[in-house]
Order: sequence, then structure tokens, then C-alpha cells
Amino acid sequence: MLTLHHLEYSQSFRVLWLLEALGAEYELKSYDRDPKTRLAPAEYKALSPLGTAPVVTDGDMVLAESNAIMDFILDAHPQSDLRPAAGHKDRARHLFWFHAAQGTLMSMQGVAMVLTLLETRTPWPIRGILKAAFGQVRKLFVNARLNAVYDLMESDLGKQAFFGGDNLTAADITLVYPMYAARDRGVFDTDYPNISGWFVRIEAMPSYIAARAKDNRERINFLIR
Amino acid sequence: MLTLHHLEYSQSFRVLWLLEALGAEYELKSYDRDPKTRLAPAEYKALSPLGTAPVVTDGDMVLAESNAIMDFILDAHPQSDLRPAAGHKDRARHLFWFHAAQGTLMSMQGVAMVLTLLETRTPWPIRGILKAAFGQVRKLFVNARLNAVYDLMESDLGKQAFFGGDNLTAADITLVYPMYAARDRGVFDTDYPNISGWFVRIEAMPSYIAARAKDNRERINFLIR
Repeated sequence: MLTLHHLEYSQSFRVLWLLEALGAEYELKSYDRDPKTRLAPAEYKALSPLGTAPVVTDGDMVLAESNAIMDFILDAHPQSDLRPAAGHKDRARHLFWFHAAQGTLMSMQGVAMVLTLLETRTPWPIRGILKAAFGQVRKLFVNARLNAVYDLMESDLGKQAFFGGDNLTAADITLVYPMYAARDRGVFDTDYPNISGWFVRIEAMPSYIAARAKDNRERINFLIR
Repeated sequence: MLTLHHLEYSQSFRVLWLLEALGAEYELKSYDRDPKTRLAPAEYKALSPLGTAPVVTDGDMVLAESNAIMDFILDAHPQSDLRPAAGHKDRARHLFWFHAAQGTLMSMQGVAMVLTLLETRTPWPIRGILKAAFGQVRKLFVNARLNAVYDLMESDLGKQAFFGGDNLTAADITLVYPMYAARDRGVFDTDYPNISGWFVRIEAMPSYIAARAKDNRERINFLIR
């Protein structure tokens, strides 16, 4: 039986939701972060080949990396519509958003987060110097690319109800982490009606509600402004 | 017929190699970067939903995002051993490295590259202030995680010859971009004999040689130090 090692406020929420959406049998082991450093506990880091969440284990097998875990779990559920099969009309759309979640959205959000951490944790007057130096990079590189992603999302969700196509797929499930990170920072407060509708739809799904109940935290990820 | 829109010195080299490794029929359209700005030409940006490389087209279909394209192309070659099927002994290993290439390695290299660009393109004396401010972030966050990835690679390549397992898979092909980016910066100059052996093995493969010949550039990606 598969065990999900779930670290609070981490990318492992996605795997929790996937398992609930599949109705899979699994064991859930939850881990709290260090209240001061916010880091994963040592026993969690020791489990994971790169020290990162999520991790799943099954006997001798240990697997990390969100989308690798999701593809691996989906292998055991070939009848599920959470991964449109080769030749399905939504296959390309599903693959694009499933991979873009990590390859584009989270990597750009990661750059933005590092710049924000550098700005907010550096004492004045260095902070002002950093903000000025980061301005052009944020505008031309980070924000321009992130806004292009959000605009494409808004457009695509105007054509079909989910990122994965007509139905919820693993693309939507893996996007849940960076999408809440963006929403919690106010990115979608205006001008994104289709994206706002997507949040309403997923939050009404029994599998999402069940995963949130098992997670039992007030939000999915940290709020880093 | 699929058309690969290949932008020089970009992630689209991976798709070129994949198509050669599959022996697929495809049309290759190559695009040069602007010699001054190094950006993709306007006609390329107009093709791509996010303005980024790679892009493939097939009739009305337009698909971006390296790994989405690779999975989509592999769908049309179900007999290929470039994507171990569900249940294959190398399936989990293939999935881990295929996804870690984008989800971990390239996203951390992206953060490192932005910090380097900020340092090198900022005039003195601001440059010194930035370097000092970045020091801890580089050490604790960026370099620690990158080194963990490189160490795991070295260990895994001591067990099996390729990232994907006993044979070359799409995991190796997608890793080619960040691996040359690291090698060109000297990361593997010492202490990584297994990784060095992997470079020797892939560079001897006829499909790699054919892809490099069609690419016809002196290196795979930009050299950003």
C-alpha cells in the first residue's frame, strides 16, 4: 500500500487531493513544520531523496517530485479520467498545463519569491537599493512572463471548464499549489472572472473538500507577500 | 506532419534530439535569435502561446512547454523505449528525472541565473552590495539544493547508465539542456565521474550526433557565467 508523507503547507497537498479524487486506498502520514524555521522536520528530510516534499513510499520504493508521483499513481488507475489518454481530444491541453505548472508557473513564481525574500529580509537602506535593482528584472522578466501565463489561463478557461479540458485532470490538481499562491497575493482580485470561476468549481468538489479536511490547515500554502 | 519550430540556443534542442532518437518524420523550421538582444524573433514569439521555445505545430494544433511536447510526441510512438511504460522496472526512475529536470533542476538554475544577471549587469558599487545580499540565499537555498540534485545524479548514474534507467529515455533527453548549462559553468569539472561518463555516452549516440548536426551550433545553450 502506498504511503503519502504529507508535509503541511507544502506541495504534497496536490498528492493528497489526487488520491482523494481517485478514491485510492493509501496511508496518510502527516508532518508539521518546525514552528520557528518553517522547515520540514529532520525525519521528513531523511525520507526524501532531495529533502523536499512531497514523498511517497511503497515498500522499498521511494519517490519524490510532485508530477512524477502523480504520473506514477495515475499508472495504477488506468480507467481514471484524471489523465486523458493518448489520442483523447483533451490530451494536448492536459499535458500543456500539467507540465507548465512546474516548468513555467512555479519556476517563475520561485524567482519572484526569492526576490521578495531578499527585499523583505534585508535591512534598510540596502532594501531600497535591492528594490531598485530588481525593478527592471521584475517588470521585463518575471512579471511579463507570469502575466502571460495568467492571461493564457484566463483565455483557456473561457473555452473549457478545467485546465485539463472538460473535466478535472491532474493538470488542475498540480496547478492548485501555484494558483493559491498567486490568489493569496491578490493576483486574481480583478480581471480574471474565468480563473475565479475555476476556484469556485474546484472548491465545490467532494474530493477537494475531503483533501482539505484531511490536511486540516487554514490554507494550502504559506502566504509570502 | 509535425513541425518543430527550433530556436537556436534554446530548450527546443531537446525536441530535436527526441525526434531524431525516435526516427520520426517531421519538418524542421529553424529560427535565429536577434544578434543584439538574443531574443527570439517576432515571428517565433507570435507562434508560441507564451512566447517561449520550443513550439510544435501540426495542422491547427500548437503545443508549447518542453515536456508536454515530449509526452505528446511519445504518444505517437508507443513501441519506443524512450518512455518506459506503466509497470516497467525503470518507470519510477524515468518519471522522477523526467519531471525533476523542470520541477527542480531548471527552476533552481533559473533562480541562480537571475541572481547572476542582476550581479553582473548592475554597475559598481551596487554590484558589491547585491553580491553580499545574495550570498546567504545562494549558499543556503540555491547552491545547497543544486548540489543535492547533482549528488543524487552522480549516485543514480553509478547504479544504471542513464537517468531513465538502463536505456536512454526522454528523462535523459530533457536533462540535456540543464546539464550542459551546468557543465559549461564548470560544475562537473571534478568529483563527478559518473556524470562525466553520461556525457561521453550520450555524445557517442548517433541520434545525438544527428541532432547536433541539424542544430549546427557550437553549443547547445547560451553560456551564462
